[in-house]
Amino acid sequence: MEARPTTAAGPAPTPAEPGPRPRRTGYRRLPVEQRREQLIAVALELFASRPPEEVGLDDVAEAAGASRPLVYRYFAGGKQQLYEAALRTAADELTSRFTVPPSGTPSEQLAAVLDGYFDFVAEHEAGYSALLRGGSVVETARTSAIVDDVRRVALKRTVRHLGVREPGPRLTLLVRSWIAVVEGASLSWLDEGRALPVVELRDWLVDQFTAMAAATALHDPQTAEVLAGLLALDGPRTDRAGRLRAVLGGQ
Amino acid sequence: MEARPTTAAGPAPTPAEPGPRPRRTGYRRLPVEQRREQLIAVALELFASRPPEEVGLDDVAEAAGASRPLVYRYFAGGKQQLYEAALRTAADELTSRFTVPPSGTPSEQLAAVLDGYFDFVAEHEAGYSALLRGGSVVETARTSAIVDDVRRVALKRTVRHLGVREPGPRLTLLVRSWIAVVEGASLSWLDEGRALPVVELRDWLVDQFTAMAAATALHDPQTAEVLAGLLALDGPRTDRAGRLRAVLGGQ
Repeated sequence: MEARPTTAAGPAPTPAEPGPRPRRTGYRRLPVEQRREQLIAVALELFASRPPEEVGLDDVAEAAGASRPLVYRYFAGGKQQLYEAALRTAADELTSRFTVPPSGTPSEQLAAVLDGYFDFVAEHEAGYSALLRGGSVVETARTSAIVDDVRRVALKRTVRHLGVREPGPRLTLLVRSWIAVVEGASLSWLDEGRALPVVELRDWLVDQFTAMAAATALHDPQTAEVLAGLLALDGPRTDRAGRLRAVLGGQ
Repeated sequence: MEARPTTAAGPAPTPAEPGPRPRRTGYRRLPVEQRREQLIAVALELFASRPPEEVGLDDVAEAAGASRPLVYRYFAGGKQQLYEAALRTAADELTSRFTVPPSGTPSEQLAAVLDGYFDFVAEHEAGYSALLRGGSVVETARTSAIVDDVRRVALKRTVRHLGVREPGPRLTLLVRSWIAVVEGASLSWLDEGRALPVVELRDWLVDQFTAMAAATALHDPQTAEVLAGLLALDGPRTDRAGRLRAVLGGQ
């Protein structure tokens, strides 16, 4: 709990909260934008560790050192609105981690992005899994749209990373499918109490990308060209393709 | 619309519907179990062609040639209960199609199961996509549980098809991931107005299975053994492995 900047003479004169002054004294006053951000940050923390249906507005108010009416002044739509704002913030944070490091082979770059992704999953465990699993009481067409936005950004960034300007339907299907595999793998990883080392899971996903691209290349010249380019850039050091060939019965 | 078995003298004396006799005459009377099944069948047809939120109980009553109170007598929980019953029926129908034909190579068997799956997707377009996409107003923890049941059966059958008794976490992750790819591919297929020929999509999914198993085999001896067995059974006719090796830079 934060120290309250009050004195025996009453609350310190800081910039006022919007609306009427709260009756109960002792709550910390924050400037409007800062308070909004603080409430969202507190909500995110609670949603990250408990399923959304187990988080009440009172919990958020208490953890933020604020009153329930104050939370309602910022989020008139109550818990649902606060949840959506928190989700939007989390989505922005997640997509900001999709940045590909400027150096390294394509596989190393993909691995780096996946590391950022798994960091996020680990930090927002309950919220991430409640949302992707669906069936949550706070899930609506709006929250699904936020998740879809994240997937769209992931698709766009991955396609750009592959050096493709106009992806055809088969290449798009490949990337979408791989993203679905990443999501599913994260959920399985959480389900099993993170038993699998995250580094192994990440390497498995990088190998999956190569393998899934190979299967798609059989049906699509554009993907075949992209894959050939990636394998040439990846070079002989890791030789992902060679190891896949060996397990497929090659020499 | 079915012909109504009424005469000038009033409804024919068939086994009675439960509860009080409907005031409006002219509705067709059906035995209890048969009526229940008919209402579910009608609901399924409506949910298959329109998003669930656009289907009202009145639509179901009208299409079934029944009164709204009668539908409520069978489904006191209203539309939500009817939706869940319809979903359960659809889920049972879908899992009944997971039966693997007794002859053929493993790839041919997998292709046959996928054909049945895509038939189902095509028949239940709107309902299938509303449910898997989430965010539907009628989606609840119960409907998610039904979808999870279907995934569990799909997982179990696929693992059994692979001849595995006790799948380890990596083999399980492989099969789960592939099922997620199948679902995602079906949704993309519907999104794009079924532009991609379903046979091509099905062959792509069979190749994906081989490729994803290969990527997993790099990390898991159990999967490596299963894959080697499948490739041996598939034989040289289609040579899926050889084509994958070629696209991965092999000879």
